[in-house]
Amino acid sequence: MSSAKELGERKIIELILDCLDIMPNMPVPFGDDVSAIDLGNGKLLVVNTDMLVGKTDVPKSMNLWQAARKAVIMNISDLAAKGTPPIALLASIGINPSLTEADILQIGKGLNAGAREYDAYIVGGDTNEASDLTINCVALGVSEKRHLIKRDGTKSGDYVAVTGSFGKTAAGLKILMNNLSAPAIREPLVNSVLMPKARVKEGVALAQSGAATASIDVSDGLAWSLHELSRANNMGFRIDNLPIAPEVELFANIHDFDPITLALYGGEEYELLVTIKPDDWQKAAKAVENVGGSLIKIGVATKKKNILLYSGEKTVSIESRGWEHFKTD
Amino acid sequence: MSSAKELGERKIIELILDCLDIMPNMPVPFGDDVSAIDLGNGKLLVVNTDMLVGKTDVPKSMNLWQAARKAVIMNISDLAAKGTPPIALLASIGINPSLTEADILQIGKGLNAGAREYDAYIVGGDTNEASDLTINCVALGVSEKRHLIKRDGTKSGDYVAVTGSFGKTAAGLKILMNNLSAPAIREPLVNSVLMPKARVKEGVALAQSGAATASIDVSDGLAWSLHELSRANNMGFRIDNLPIAPEVELFANIHDFDPITLALYGGEEYELLVTIKPDDWQKAAKAVENVGGSLIKIGVATKKKNILLYSGEKTVSIESRGWEHFKTD
Repeated sequence: MSSAKELGERKIIELILDCLDIMPNMPVPFGDDVSAIDLGNGKLLVVNTDMLVGKTDVPKSMNLWQAARKAVIMNISDLAAKGTPPIALLASIGINPSLTEADILQIGKGLNAGAREYDAYIVGGDTNEASDLTINCVALGVSEKRHLIKRDGTKSGDYVAVTGSFGKTAAGLKILMNNLSAPAIREPLVNSVLMPKARVKEGVALAQSGAATASIDVSDGLAWSLHELSRANNMGFRIDNLPIAPEVELFANIHDFDPITLALYGGEEYELLVTIKPDDWQKAAKAVENVGGSLIKIGVATKKKNILLYSGEKTVSIESRGWEHFKTD
Repeated sequence: MSSAKELGERKIIELILDCLDIMPNMPVPFGDDVSAIDLGNGKLLVVNTDMLVGKTDVPKSMNLWQAARKAVIMNISDLAAKGTPPIALLASIGINPSLTEADILQIGKGLNAGAREYDAYIVGGDTNEASDLTINCVALGVSEKRHLIKRDGTKSGDYVAVTGSFGKTAAGLKILMNNLSAPAIREPLVNSVLMPKARVKEGVALAQSGAATASIDVSDGLAWSLHELSRANNMGFRIDNLPIAPEVELFANIHDFDPITLALYGGEEYELLVTIKPDDWQKAAKAVENVGGSLIKIGVATKKKNILLYSGEKTVSIESRGWEHFKTD
């Protein structure tokens, strides 16, 4: 019989979903970034839970303050993708008995810092003994039902857009894991790993503009998120403007990496990937700019279900791979 | 510097709380069974998160279906103590890569079974790789603000009551861990460990009756919960009717254990411990009986802050100890 390692995370999720009775009238289907409960009066409770595990989610050079903050940010990012600002979070922590008082204070301060950055509060939690550091957060927000941006509203011809450039996390991880040099550009690359940001302002602005037809956070890599969006909408994408961060181009050049691979197949970038009605493009871009962000058009949704990258004279197929627990080393 | 093991769970929680900015107008203070968010219109979102860790929360003879179900029940029990029925749960699971497909199905089915027993649904979650089995659930419910029973409303003279008898879990654990014999009574004792129940009907009935002045779930043992309630209310208790389960009396007799110790200092019994206005006693007892439960008067709240047990001619002080992560082996 197959082990979890052979099955991989996606298959494990499928197996578990098959065991569950489905709640009638779920406002958001399984597989979206968040779960939701109908509160009546046109309002939804929007909730997300994600577990950070030391072994797989915390690079060695990330300190406990940063790890705890990251556990908060990764949960807030999913709310951001739906256009819901976080109100409060709960945190269950599992810590090794050998951790010191100073370590515990780092965790507490990191949790608080992550929440306060986005005007939310930690309002509860749980403490446990565990071999490996485990921080499970729950992010809670309330959204107008009509404002929530699901994954499955894309129409053929919609523009595909993102809230930032890509590749920094993949490059930053290579610097940290393999001790690679990157003079002058080290800080932004490494910071994208150690100090991720959630695109809350951008997501909320897009939701309120009414211009976005679908949205997902790019926590498992841009290629993977494009494929998720493709599956949810039964649609393909033609990408003709892959926004690679300039620091990533430089880094790739120094160490002879392919910048496109770094931008497509990294993970944990926490940018938003959205689709926008063409007629609403100006409105959407303006809404995001008004809150200090930027919306970058990268392509268009197509009836043909393949996901293609046009770069110069070459056209390549974007593969369905990205970070996957159990399968990625 | 002290390690987590030396500090113990309560001190660790204190350290973390000291790091947190407190949300203004929190409807339920830190330290209560649940957290809450004001939804307006007199309604509260009631939420709880608890992490089940294989090493400390799952006895060897508990299978994965039971462990997953328990992870759900322990979260629902905290909502029950506040009188809030669960609507939905999320589950983050961390599993060892060596688990099989059959193991994963057991976990999925156990989660679903626990939720459906209390008319709730699993609506989302997260999957991760972890050395030790980790199941973190989040239980969500909505309560009328005026119905939520907090920990801190006890007045001197209030009756102290519980929703069931005690000692079964402590006895059951001894049977499982030390392979003790218990002819005829094995099943109810062992089942209290492997198949815990949450007192949702009882909690909801008490909340709607308006008769309960405070409530807490007895997940860390009756003695510990009495001390928690004492601290929250700045009050003591005189206990004169400790309801020891008849099977526990028998078991204690066979193996020469003290039944009072089993009833007071076990853990994870998930009964509710409540205080009731004396004038409302009939109303409260009736409300619980009407939903098929029972409310057992065990004592009275006192201005004197000690917690005393009157049993026959002896009076003993009930110690402030119970299950504590990091400190209990």
